[in-house]
Amino acid sequence: MTIVAVGIDADDTLWHNESLFHLTQQQFFSLLEEYGEPDHMAARLVEVERRNLRLYGYGVKGFTLSMIETAIDLTRGAVPAKTIERILELGRSLLDYPIEPLDGVAETLPALKGKYRLIVITKGDLLNQEQKLARSGLGDHFDAIEIVSEKDAETYRRIARRHSIAPENTVMIGNSLKSDVLPALEAGLWGIHIPYPITWAHERAEPPADEPRYARLETMREVPGWLAAHA
Amino acid sequence: MTIVAVGIDADDTLWHNESLFHLTQQQFFSLLEEYGEPDHMAARLVEVERRNLRLYGYGVKGFTLSMIETAIDLTRGAVPAKTIERILELGRSLLDYPIEPLDGVAETLPALKGKYRLIVITKGDLLNQEQKLARSGLGDHFDAIEIVSEKDAETYRRIARRHSIAPENTVMIGNSLKSDVLPALEAGLWGIHIPYPITWAHERAEPPADEPRYARLETMREVPGWLAAHA
Repeated sequence: MTIVAVGIDADDTLWHNESLFHLTQQQFFSLLEEYGEPDHMAARLVEVERRNLRLYGYGVKGFTLSMIETAIDLTRGAVPAKTIERILELGRSLLDYPIEPLDGVAETLPALKGKYRLIVITKGDLLNQEQKLARSGLGDHFDAIEIVSEKDAETYRRIARRHSIAPENTVMIGNSLKSDVLPALEAGLWGIHIPYPITWAHERAEPPADEPRYARLETMREVPGWLAAHA
Repeated sequence: MTIVAVGIDADDTLWHNESLFHLTQQQFFSLLEEYGEPDHMAARLVEVERRNLRLYGYGVKGFTLSMIETAIDLTRGAVPAKTIERILELGRSLLDYPIEPLDGVAETLPALKGKYRLIVITKGDLLNQEQKLARSGLGDHFDAIEIVSEKDAETYRRIARRHSIAPENTVMIGNSLKSDVLPALEAGLWGIHIPYPITWAHERAEPPADEPRYARLETMREVPGWLAAHA
């Protein structure tokens, strides 16, 4: 029951991300304001994203393509090319935004380094996630980076095998119950949920009931204490 | 000098890919035929792709975004949304095309399996490359899959370290001199070039001169013989 390895999600766990997507969506809705209400547009965008997930997977490039598709759809083909050009720019900004670590992250990672095997486990566009980690300046705290196309129980089992760590000696920390916590628990890991103020529509899920390997913390600052209590 | 591990590129080495991109480009040029000559449009598309590589990386999603940008650019904003919709469809087809293994691949991989550590080393969209490998039916022949954002000498060094194989005991096989052969040679691996009839504009390079660790073969069928001669 000793924890020796710590998996940590990146977007909305190490740094702000969903708030930037949210801001981008607001700008997207403003571009199209003459064609409908933000709520209606948001619902269509979620629908288009869901339909495209199988082929596009996660990340900004797929999101940009889905915004363009939604714009054509919502305007019944009347959207001007200038607006599409603006959507392309919104996507590029989202790929290149300044990385702002979340509260407590920069202080906590050095305290864990060396005591635990630290692994970033994230989904999204391969190149973009690598670039964000590099821009964050946090990369050196980690022993390994795993960028994956999906986070299900098999993903966590595969990562544990690859690093020769037992699932019961590993904890996964992240803001998404659906991607970070529930499948990690299913794979036999421990799971810590640190909520982020905004959750993407496709990541919503209920917390597990009566699960001794599950914990909910408020910030990364509480992680060393939790780990010490579970040594 | 014994080869124990074989890295193999995927697109245009295991299966047809660039021919499908080429066909997609032809369809893209047809959509825009009233706005210019194919050669002119091709030059603009290459330029836009080059500018976007830093942010988009490799793969179909970035290519689709670059086609949309080129269409807006070439038409000075006059491209109708219906045409953009068609470009989105071209991109989705490219993500979902049937995988057709290249001549000799399906016969050769089983002959190498078990004798060498076989690793797919490919760049492109993470999810898409995984899906293509699954659709190809070739996945079971491989001991590991490495999907990377860039193929430079450091990439090959990192993969060799991760799999505990010495570069001098490893050969990399691929259709791109620029991505598969030259950086592998620089990292101390052996490099085998198996050309594909079409080479993407961003992958063109000259073969190395006087390099004993370099070979050029015509098909994957010649690989077992080359390996036997270098045992």
